[in-house]
Amino acid sequence: MSARNVALRPDHRAVIILDQTRLPNETVFLELEEAEEMFAAIQKLQVRGAPALGVFAACALYVLAVHDQEESNSAFRSALQKNADYLVSSRPTAVNLGWAARRMTAVADGHPTLSPKELLPLLYEECYSIHKNNIATCRAIAENGLRLLRNGDGILTHCNAGPLATARYGTALGPILLGTERGMKFRVFADETRPLLQGARLTSYELDQAGVDVTLICDNMAAAVMQKGWVQACLVGCDRVAANGDVANKIGTCGVAVLARHYGIPFYVLGPSSSIDFSCASGRDIQIEERDPEEIRSLYYRQPMAPLSVKCYNPAFDVTDASFISGIVTEFGVCRPPYPESLARLRSEIQR
Amino acid sequence: MSARNVALRPDHRAVIILDQTRLPNETVFLELEEAEEMFAAIQKLQVRGAPALGVFAACALYVLAVHDQEESNSAFRSALQKNADYLVSSRPTAVNLGWAARRMTAVADGHPTLSPKELLPLLYEECYSIHKNNIATCRAIAENGLRLLRNGDGILTHCNAGPLATARYGTALGPILLGTERGMKFRVFADETRPLLQGARLTSYELDQAGVDVTLICDNMAAAVMQKGWVQACLVGCDRVAANGDVANKIGTCGVAVLARHYGIPFYVLGPSSSIDFSCASGRDIQIEERDPEEIRSLYYRQPMAPLSVKCYNPAFDVTDASFISGIVTEFGVCRPPYPESLARLRSEIQR
Repeated sequence: MSARNVALRPDHRAVIILDQTRLPNETVFLELEEAEEMFAAIQKLQVRGAPALGVFAACALYVLAVHDQEESNSAFRSALQKNADYLVSSRPTAVNLGWAARRMTAVADGHPTLSPKELLPLLYEECYSIHKNNIATCRAIAENGLRLLRNGDGILTHCNAGPLATARYGTALGPILLGTERGMKFRVFADETRPLLQGARLTSYELDQAGVDVTLICDNMAAAVMQKGWVQACLVGCDRVAANGDVANKIGTCGVAVLARHYGIPFYVLGPSSSIDFSCASGRDIQIEERDPEEIRSLYYRQPMAPLSVKCYNPAFDVTDASFISGIVTEFGVCRPPYPESLARLRSEIQR
Repeated sequence: MSARNVALRPDHRAVIILDQTRLPNETVFLELEEAEEMFAAIQKLQVRGAPALGVFAACALYVLAVHDQEESNSAFRSALQKNADYLVSSRPTAVNLGWAARRMTAVADGHPTLSPKELLPLLYEECYSIHKNNIATCRAIAENGLRLLRNGDGILTHCNAGPLATARYGTALGPILLGTERGMKFRVFADETRPLLQGARLTSYELDQAGVDVTLICDNMAAAVMQKGWVQACLVGCDRVAANGDVANKIGTCGVAVLARHYGIPFYVLGPSSSIDFSCASGRDIQIEERDPEEIRSLYYRQPMAPLSVKCYNPAFDVTDASFISGIVTEFGVCRPPYPESLARLRSEIQR
């Protein structure tokens, strides 16, 4: 099992990740062995993107279980649960962390009589399956999203929901990459996405590498680009979708959605169905992570760019009201408004 | 004649400016003697802000005239005109540069028989008067703007239209600073304003120094802050106002205006009446400066943050449609929609 951004070391005693905070100018792989390092890697966004976080959490829990295999059965099982709770607490907004952690602990819970060494292959299978399914899911999202685009379209995207954020193809970037493979041409505008510049560092890098015509803009230029008629569709990923269709995604997404509505541009959210939190009635119920003010005050921690005493407000995500979303694209197809109904139908399809 | 941001050196052979690109962490004054240095200072935004640019251009033309005082009358006059055209060409969007330059050349044109040495005191008087009027104008704008605010209001501002951008009080920040002097409390959200971070470096610095409760946010957080109900008014400056009320201002302004409309927040533009270009019928006729892509690609030229090959689109300004503007505040009062009528009335008031 291997991918560019998350992989197991051959001895299964470390998760290897591509440190996304160093891209695009440095390619650094990190080998994470301890739970604390894994927690920190999520928190610092060295590994990021909702689907990639799910794959990472599963791999991390498997690796920690490998370390614990000599423990007693009850110590092994309580360590697995403790590690799951600990990793999930690193970032409160992404639903995929909890989803993947629950899948891993469910394996242990489903086989109460197996010893740690008997459980390990099942845990490995589970994280392998999460990873493999993620690839298939991204491919299906890309196919479903591509049907919404026309050759020559201008597309605006925010943050990074490309291969680095997933296991392959990405979510929001999937249709663009798949269409490009098939010879279609798009003109993509990538919001740089302050404060951590995932659009500049990751999206423009991934699209540039794939030969896509990409233009990097500052977040505050999205309106000007739409005003000029250069954008025919907005594609964004999602960190959590509520049952009513409200979407938590990278800070700035909600503003892009309001602008898209004003300029008459369809606004699509793309993500695996595992991003939908049916236990969450609306966006009001989504807890929004607030991050270190230093991310705003200084440029990437390297250069203070504001008075050191000044207050900053640094929410990592915002909530886009369902009424601004033209379609929610999952591996199962495109849900359209009204979302309470279309997402409920999707839910029964998943359960079937 | 002296101010914090633009002053004459006592020998009148240099303009002294506070280098705004080094703030808030370094306080560096530059003494500019040559036309090329003055041109570069405008282009690099070492001096910036529409009203301050007018004061600077007037002082610069006076200083260059001092250097040329030994020339023949015709050489002196043609050098003045050449220097005026040259400085005005440094940034195409700000109307105040051309306005101040025309006032200076009009002094020479109005006294065709005077020698260079006889003209110098008149040119000095003119730049002194532009400076002094700018202070009085800012004060009047602050008074007129303050009537639109209530104690306790949350206010969002974009870019920097404070004292550093003018000769005192500023335009958009004027009502906040004047109200604060009078004991009122506001809660201000300052957009950092990428790419050159005037909001982080200058606005949050000026407001912090003045004891105003200011919170710095990234540009893409404006929608989230409005969504929470924290903003009761948006105040922005202007680089050029067309006769129909369309406004060219720092890139990102138009997006803030669309968001403000969506969230039911009044959106006010503040500036001296000299920012109104009655020869310009609508925003379509305003030429928008495009700047170096490197401003986006690398963080303040210090750290590359995107692939070096990636294209960037870097307009310095955008045009906000008049229909999004609740009021245009000048030293004469508040113009309300429909702007073609209210600005025309203002024009006749100015001419009276």
